[in-house]
Amino acid sequence: MFLRNVWYVAGWCSEFGPEAAARTIAGEPLVFFRAQGGELVALEDRCPHRWARLSLGRVEGCELRCMYHGLKFSADGRCTEIPGQDRISSKLQVRKFPVVERYQWAWVWTGDADLADEALIPDVGLLDQPWRRLSTGQLDYEAHHALISDNLLDLSHIAFLHEKTLGRRPDGEPADKEIWRAQSGAEAKQIDRGVRYEGWRTSEFSKSVIQAKSAPNGDTWSRLDYTVPGIFISHVVVYPVGTAAGCNFKAPPPDLEPLGDNMSCQAVTPMTERTTRYFYSSGPRTSDLLEEEAQAMWAVAVEAFLEDQVMIEAQQKNIDNHPGGQMGWIDADRGPGMFRAMMERMMRAEGSSVDSIPPKTEPAVRVGRRALAGAS
Amino acid sequence: MFLRNVWYVAGWCSEFGPEAAARTIAGEPLVFFRAQGGELVALEDRCPHRWARLSLGRVEGCELRCMYHGLKFSADGRCTEIPGQDRISSKLQVRKFPVVERYQWAWVWTGDADLADEALIPDVGLLDQPWRRLSTGQLDYEAHHALISDNLLDLSHIAFLHEKTLGRRPDGEPADKEIWRAQSGAEAKQIDRGVRYEGWRTSEFSKSVIQAKSAPNGDTWSRLDYTVPGIFISHVVVYPVGTAAGCNFKAPPPDLEPLGDNMSCQAVTPMTERTTRYFYSSGPRTSDLLEEEAQAMWAVAVEAFLEDQVMIEAQQKNIDNHPGGQMGWIDADRGPGMFRAMMERMMRAEGSSVDSIPPKTEPAVRVGRRALAGAS
Amino acid sequence: MFLRNVWYVAGWCSEFGPEAAARTIAGEPLVFFRAQGGELVALEDRCPHRWARLSLGRVEGCELRCMYHGLKFSADGRCTEIPGQDRISSKLQVRKFPVVERYQWAWVWTGDADLADEALIPDVGLLDQPWRRLSTGQLDYEAHHALISDNLLDLSHIAFLHEKTLGRRPDGEPADKEIWRAQSGAEAKQIDRGVRYEGWRTSEFSKSVIQAKSAPNGDTWSRLDYTVPGIFISHVVVYPVGTAAGCNFKAPPPDLEPLGDNMSCQAVTPMTERTTRYFYSSGPRTSDLLEEEAQAMWAVAVEAFLEDQVMIEAQQKNIDNHPGGQMGWIDADRGPGMFRAMMERMMRAEGSSVDSIPPKTEPAVRVGRRALAGAS
Repeated sequence: MFLRNVWYVAGWCSEFGPEAAARTIAGEPLVFFRAQGGELVALEDRCPHRWARLSLGRVEGCELRCMYHGLKFSADGRCTEIPGQDRISSKLQVRKFPVVERYQWAWVWTGDADLADEALIPDVGLLDQPWRRLSTGQLDYEAHHALISDNLLDLSHIAFLHEKTLGRRPDGEPADKEIWRAQSGAEAKQIDRGVRYEGWRTSEFSKSVIQAKSAPNGDTWSRLDYTVPGIFISHVVVYPVGTAAGCNFKAPPPDLEPLGDNMSCQAVTPMTERTTRYFYSSGPRTSDLLEEEAQAMWAVAVEAFLEDQVMIEAQQKNIDNHPGGQMGWIDADRGPGMFRAMMERMMRAEGSSVDSIPPKTEPAVRVGRRALAGAS
Repeated sequence: MFLRNVWYVAGWCSEFGPEAAARTIAGEPLVFFRAQGGELVALEDRCPHRWARLSLGRVEGCELRCMYHGLKFSADGRCTEIPGQDRISSKLQVRKFPVVERYQWAWVWTGDADLADEALIPDVGLLDQPWRRLSTGQLDYEAHHALISDNLLDLSHIAFLHEKTLGRRPDGEPADKEIWRAQSGAEAKQIDRGVRYEGWRTSEFSKSVIQAKSAPNGDTWSRLDYTVPGIFISHVVVYPVGTAAGCNFKAPPPDLEPLGDNMSCQAVTPMTERTTRYFYSSGPRTSDLLEEEAQAMWAVAVEAFLEDQVMIEAQQKNIDNHPGGQMGWIDADRGPGMFRAMMERMMRAEGSSVDSIPPKTEPAVRVGRRALAGAS
Repeated sequence: MFLRNVWYVAGWCSEFGPEAAARTIAGEPLVFFRAQGGELVALEDRCPHRWARLSLGRVEGCELRCMYHGLKFSADGRCTEIPGQDRISSKLQVRKFPVVERYQWAWVWTGDADLADEALIPDVGLLDQPWRRLSTGQLDYEAHHALISDNLLDLSHIAFLHEKTLGRRPDGEPADKEIWRAQSGAEAKQIDRGVRYEGWRTSEFSKSVIQAKSAPNGDTWSRLDYTVPGIFISHVVVYPVGTAAGCNFKAPPPDLEPLGDNMSCQAVTPMTERTTRYFYSSGPRTSDLLEEEAQAMWAVAVEAFLEDQVMIEAQQKNIDNHPGGQMGWIDADRGPGMFRAMMERMMRAEGSSVDSIPPKTEPAVRVGRRALAGAS
């Protein structure tokens, strides 16, 4: 079962053109198409007549024609033509799903359409700033989406799983493992509809993690928000050495001029209960890095995403092999645990079973419940 | 479950030689071999000893030897030799299936052998006429056979699904969609053990559908019979312009000399409940078309069969994703509905469950029952 | 279900080095690694924290580090380090499996570790004799291990299944089928924890089965033991013509000098209930054969192992297609039946279900029970 009354990222806006395109989102086979005029439409990918795939159909103006027997449907899912037949039953209706294009992403709502509130779309404005050199990608996992959320909610794994990629220092040696502790799940704070990690790392940090040679050195303020249903927004800003102390290690004032600035926005979208599409991006300021350096950094990040995939798909296999077990608990699980507790509470509130979620740790649920009292 | 007491097409006669060959028909793994003298034999593909595949065995004269431990079986399935052992238990018996070779096809009966009446083999004599240029082929579907029968029982889909192949005019433009209405499921008539479409199309038709340039032009009389368990026989005859009117738009007299004549015989054979083998053919009179033209037409037809496969396999996936739903109903479903009702009535009469058949339309069943009162 | 309190062959000792390696044995996903100093260790391949695969981890001295979040485990499965956390729960424990390296093979015990008695490892000393030219290999079956044991317990199948490989005479003609009767299952004798075939074959034998031209000719004494859980030990010794009669067709005295000597040791290890790893070897005395001849003989044997695989995997498919049936019984099933009865009795004694074992022959079980009274 899936959380229903949320906006899922269906893809990059640029993926969708005038051709019908199939996407499975949270167990729903959908057909997306851009109607004449540009509006992006999502319908159930199933003709109500003989259940043909509408994604094998043809867009005609603002309508979609099933190319099996020729029935035509408007963008709101009504059947508007049956070849050779005048009378059209109102039962021949395709379910329409609310879609919003915002921040480069197409968001779709698979729950109750009456509840589809655009205000619930997370603020991913960092994706939308023209002064960034945006790199984007995506990959499909054979794993439950909760395992990918767990991964993104405890970045202490970078020191181990990504030892040879993201976890290297500029000189190629493994990074100091302590350096990643600051974004360990143990440091999680509850926010509305999500979990936050934020704080200063002094200029020593820059010497200890992989980065471009031309990257500015200084004190680093980073904030990482992970919100339902699986939106990762990381913002890392570099200020002159001494700024952290000058701010008393609190958040920097908004008008303070940074030396450098990078962001990464990612989205975890369940396709089925065992497959997940993972969208990722990186966006340093164009002024901060040489293009070749930015490309080289991106290549390292993409390699790291593949390291995650290998580990998490193997983890899923272990889970499938051991029905009914219970995972262990360490301090770093606090963040993932908070987020899972929130997701499960929201699912229960919708009347959805949480049984298909991979095994959880009892302490995590307890911490989560306490920490989240009153949330969401 | 499958209809049992019917003849299924197991293959083209030419497929079967002296080597043992495995075929799965209606859920039964069978081994076919041509015994010395040429008789085609079908046994269960399972040695009663250790359940080895007899299709990995060796034909020895009129017998088949299992090549695991060497047991030998006669064409009627009796064990005739156990290496190193004199006594042969009568339990070591392989089930034999009735086989008939007729009209280029090998027909097999998977039901009660005592009921295997050759008179129930449909008359596919059109396949067997030496003055035709016969082209044949086959392909395997990952889909329930009923979906392929549905397809063949409503040719109005040609105008949409086959818009770029069979549904083109000689000038390459899409055919007038009305032209295909004449073989829409809405026009179906009940016949014994099947459904019939027949009628005249005047010479305008020839200008509006794909065909060879050398094809004769005239009034076209066509008859399409689709009979249990899934035999498609189409006969299209061209007469001089005016013949349709001269016949009062009734069937032409048998002695009337045609300008041209084509046929297509096809067979839909379930292998399992999700896989189906589809045999097809085309047979214009050799005198009507140049060989190159006949070949070009055939290439178009083969491409169209692949279009069907893509659509129907996707339809099957939608069905598998939506257990328990109900399909919509349009007028063109009258023919498919009649045939399904007949098949299901025959299955129930055999005591077989019809639960595995893809979801049906309630109106279709009702129409079918009424239309079929007294049939089969 | 699997027999638990036995030693399974996990692999050739040479397969295992300092890198962590995944192996599934009797349904258990295991990680093997050679600790500093060389000791081979087997742990459950599942980190108790987030169920990552430990086989994706890194060996550090005598310990294994999970490379997801960095937890470290000693060779006895205790967690010895959690990065960033001082307190370590004793629940973070990985199951350790007893391992013994002996006779070139690594043996693992998946049952009660307290019962892991090394004296239960079969004597496969023939594998360990330096004067042999040892050839080894392995292959993975998509089949239940009992079907492979059945195969090895009735070598009369060589005359049929291996007619073109092991069952040929030196001149390329099929061997006299009688020649293989001596190792038919009908000749089986019960021994402790297994089944034995032994006896003389006079010098005629050598002319009638495939072998190297330089192989010594003479009377052949052969003994084949097949013991739980699936260890095949074949020893074939050639003596001067007349020795068989001189020994009254009883076992030759141990100090009698042979003309030639060959052995084959094989092991059948269940991975899951439908997959099995099969290890095989051949070991003629280096002094008996030219190297090229030994290689040519080995190539024939490897081809024969593939013939077995094709047949047995097809047999498994027939079994999967026919739930609940019962196989036939011939005299040659006596050996396989004895062994199955023993395996099943041992499984029942452990409280394991035998339901997943492929269908058995009623007579085999009866014969087995009688023959095995008091065994194991």
